[in-house]
Amino acid sequence: MGNDLHMRYLEDFKPAERETIDGYLLTEEEIISFAQKWDPQPMHIDPEAAKTSHFGGLIAAGAHLMAIGVHQLYARPTRPAVIGVMGLDHVRFLEPARPGDLIALLRECIEVRPSRSKPDRGVVRNRVTLINQHGKSLLRYEDTILVLRRPSTGTP
Amino acid sequence: MGNDLHMRYLEDFKPAERETIDGYLLTEEEIISFAQKWDPQPMHIDPEAAKTSHFGGLIAAGAHLMAIGVHQLYARPTRPAVIGVMGLDHVRFLEPARPGDLIALLRECIEVRPSRSKPDRGVVRNRVTLINQHGKSLLRYEDTILVLRRPSTGTP
Repeated sequence: MGNDLHMRYLEDFKPAERETIDGYLLTEEEIISFAQKWDPQPMHIDPEAAKTSHFGGLIAAGAHLMAIGVHQLYARPTRPAVIGVMGLDHVRFLEPARPGDLIALLRECIEVRPSRSKPDRGVVRNRVTLINQHGKSLLRYEDTILVLRRPSTGTP
Repeated sequence: MGNDLHMRYLEDFKPAERETIDGYLLTEEEIISFAQKWDPQPMHIDPEAAKTSHFGGLIAAGAHLMAIGVHQLYARPTRPAVIGVMGLDHVRFLEPARPGDLIALLRECIEVRPSRSKPDRGVVRNRVTLINQHGKSLLRYEDTILVLRRPSTGTP
């Protein structure tokens, strides 16, 4: 798969480790273009109509926030050597994300569990939180991902 | 917010109701373009590299599948009168979604609960499953959404 030097394998995850990933600037243009495709409700695509909504202005779609979380975790040179994401639990949309928000991702590793049946892999669980520039948590969830162990070098 | 005739209000949700929403055709082009922006791992963006991956071919990003679920629920003339999505629970990626899949959404209403403190709204929970053309479940989750009651007509 290339770039293996930048992979984080099962051995690289430690329970209770914390990692903060740089801010993601959320623009009005991106909020609208994401929502026009996936969730075209007025609060996400129409700045004028959004002013009279429950949130008083344009807010990002929930699916957009979840995509930003994935982007921060996986669209980097150093990324988990995932086989796949098994699931997400306790996904909570806590505060709306608005145009101009600078969003940081906090990852807290909850659990690292080598597979009993397959020696090349294991399960990692992380608590992931997206936080805006005011320190408010916007989205929180726990992921459960299947991660490869570091391949052996082949020399005994 | 316009088009109120097509809104599904709290009164329109019934526990145990089931609704199936038409198939969504997942193309290779869309899998790649979504993932290039949000989750550019080889299994999502590189058909050749994907052949040697765990899944044996290109698969859709999890965030893409979640966006498809939102699209099927909210990008329709008749959509829930949501104030917002509070959360998702038990999100499970069960089978990979591949190019050419025709994905149906099954919504099963689990609970309808009027708010005790705010008479204009209530909470609805649904079990949502995306199912491919072979009847295999790809993604399952439970949503918890805040939904408006039908506005009173103003005539007593």
